[in-house]
Amino acid sequence: MKLQNDLILRAAKRLPTERTPIWIMRQAGRYLPEYRAVRAKHDFLTMCKTPELASEVTIQPVDIIGVDAAIIFSDILVIPEAMGMHLEMNEGKGPVFTSPIKTKDDVLKLKDPDPSKDLKFVLDAISLTKKELNGRVPVIGFAGAPWTILTYMVEGQGSKSFSKVKKLVYGNPELAHSLLEKITKATAAYLSAQIEAGASIVQIFDTWAGILSPRDYQVFAMRYVQQLISEIKRLQGPASTEKDTPIIYFPKGVHYLMHELKEVGADAISVDWTLELEKVRRKIGDKVAIQGNLDPTVLYAEPSFIKREARKVLESFGKGHGHIFNLGHGILPDIDPANVKVLVNYVKEESKSFHH
Amino acid sequence: MKLQNDLILRAAKRLPTERTPIWIMRQAGRYLPEYRAVRAKHDFLTMCKTPELASEVTIQPVDIIGVDAAIIFSDILVIPEAMGMHLEMNEGKGPVFTSPIKTKDDVLKLKDPDPSKDLKFVLDAISLTKKELNGRVPVIGFAGAPWTILTYMVEGQGSKSFSKVKKLVYGNPELAHSLLEKITKATAAYLSAQIEAGASIVQIFDTWAGILSPRDYQVFAMRYVQQLISEIKRLQGPASTEKDTPIIYFPKGVHYLMHELKEVGADAISVDWTLELEKVRRKIGDKVAIQGNLDPTVLYAEPSFIKREARKVLESFGKGHGHIFNLGHGILPDIDPANVKVLVNYVKEESKSFHH
Repeated sequence: MKLQNDLILRAAKRLPTERTPIWIMRQAGRYLPEYRAVRAKHDFLTMCKTPELASEVTIQPVDIIGVDAAIIFSDILVIPEAMGMHLEMNEGKGPVFTSPIKTKDDVLKLKDPDPSKDLKFVLDAISLTKKELNGRVPVIGFAGAPWTILTYMVEGQGSKSFSKVKKLVYGNPELAHSLLEKITKATAAYLSAQIEAGASIVQIFDTWAGILSPRDYQVFAMRYVQQLISEIKRLQGPASTEKDTPIIYFPKGVHYLMHELKEVGADAISVDWTLELEKVRRKIGDKVAIQGNLDPTVLYAEPSFIKREARKVLESFGKGHGHIFNLGHGILPDIDPANVKVLVNYVKEESKSFHH
Repeated sequence: MKLQNDLILRAAKRLPTERTPIWIMRQAGRYLPEYRAVRAKHDFLTMCKTPELASEVTIQPVDIIGVDAAIIFSDILVIPEAMGMHLEMNEGKGPVFTSPIKTKDDVLKLKDPDPSKDLKFVLDAISLTKKELNGRVPVIGFAGAPWTILTYMVEGQGSKSFSKVKKLVYGNPELAHSLLEKITKATAAYLSAQIEAGASIVQIFDTWAGILSPRDYQVFAMRYVQQLISEIKRLQGPASTEKDTPIIYFPKGVHYLMHELKEVGADAISVDWTLELEKVRRKIGDKVAIQGNLDPTVLYAEPSFIKREARKVLESFGKGHGHIFNLGHGILPDIDPANVKVLVNYVKEESKSFHH
């Protein structure tokens, strides 16, 4: 089953493409009426855990919006759940761990999940999606970065002050490190299994990377991403750098350490809209591809404004290869899908002139 | 009434000091049992609007913690309230505007407040505090930056996605600019009146500066701060740059445009813990003083850890003048006051060696 559209794979390797590929973070989601129709009948976790449902909503944006890749519908918290934590859906607040990690015993009790058993539903969803897509676009697999997963495991849910996780890190760094090691190991096996199941590219979401100081980010976050990526590459076995499955790393809110970030092992770095692609490219674009970075709220505006802002993003990256167009963060649930189509069509057409 | 401790004023002007001055953002607040005792008897807005109560909690951290300045107890939202918006306290969620700004009519209806009437309670609180302090430390006045105030006026309260304010900015920039003009004018008169009433230094809080792209930050936020500061300096009348009331600007989350920021007119720029003081100083320290930037959650840790991290902040700024020690953001309500004392005493003692 040869891929008819491998633009994102080539862009992630900084190989020549005819135009800039585009996909949208959280593209399978609440802004689509077609998604809401499925969601009305099933709860969120059931959707994650039923390959047919997950696959259905994964493919929707390919059909409806025309994006260049299909990110598997899932949640980053399935990993801690597979490690033994109890995950509950708290309507309106998102998934919550009712017994967050507090002590060394809590960490010791966590198990090393076997993806082929404990996370089979994700792997099945990927295989099924790949089959259904029949080569139209690649499937993107994903997981949370170790630091972000640890944050959820310790806070129990999102937070404003992140006081619990900071208490752990500052008060008991050894425990934080042992937990990070466990998560890294589990995530490496999980992402490798996703690749095995048919994901042609994977993204690591480090949603809470930006709450740390640069020094702590290096110690508690970046180091484990580096370890995670090298473990995935090792598990994939020997391959030419150009051929192995591309990995995108998204350290949300990180604006420092660009020189270190280009050595993290990722093929592409995803950045938010507070960074200028031009500058990021000057710092790291000779070594890694760059993904991003339209402000998601631009999609609230008129089509002419959306096009103007999309053009600014294309111009900021400039001519040449190695750019994957995306938002700087997840799409908001009350965005009009028509505006997303405007964006996707515009980027597909206008980016051509940036590639010759 | 001569000031016995004017360290913060000198540091803000990059003049020689014997040691680094320190104060704590939101130092008059919930982490202090003495504050909670007052708060138990009065609601938040009553405390803001009763000079005796505001003054009492303003002075508490000077007595209890030993900080080098007393920031007046108030709220940045008193300005929109004085402009005619209805402010309500929503317990647990903070102050809320029940009818946020939506249309041109809403903006036209706003009035130009007269600080000596509409905000007299703040001015009285400042005068009273100054009298009570009797020259022990300077009083810090403050206001929100125009962009941050506009954000609250349009969102009605804090937000995660800031969709309403982004819709306004992207969909109707003219309306945003006319509102920003109004806020800037009102805030200039307000801060000037605070200085008149006895504030020896003022801080402008731009809490939501970081939600914008660098370009939009310049257009919608920085430009108005520049306008605000030059208007305050104009209203103060001719004075030598060294003598006029110092202004600190805190653009939370802004990590770009440092070269432009040093031209904003502020005497000091306050930065959060995701920036390295060393680098900030290299970029702007020849022109403005720098305030910051300990991660507030460090105060959860053991005294030895707090001292180590405080030392890193001192070392990161390095030897010389022009540093005001502070947290990188507001103190958290569940911090132990004993830890704050550890920090303040440590900085007072250890910073001496950085000043000769």
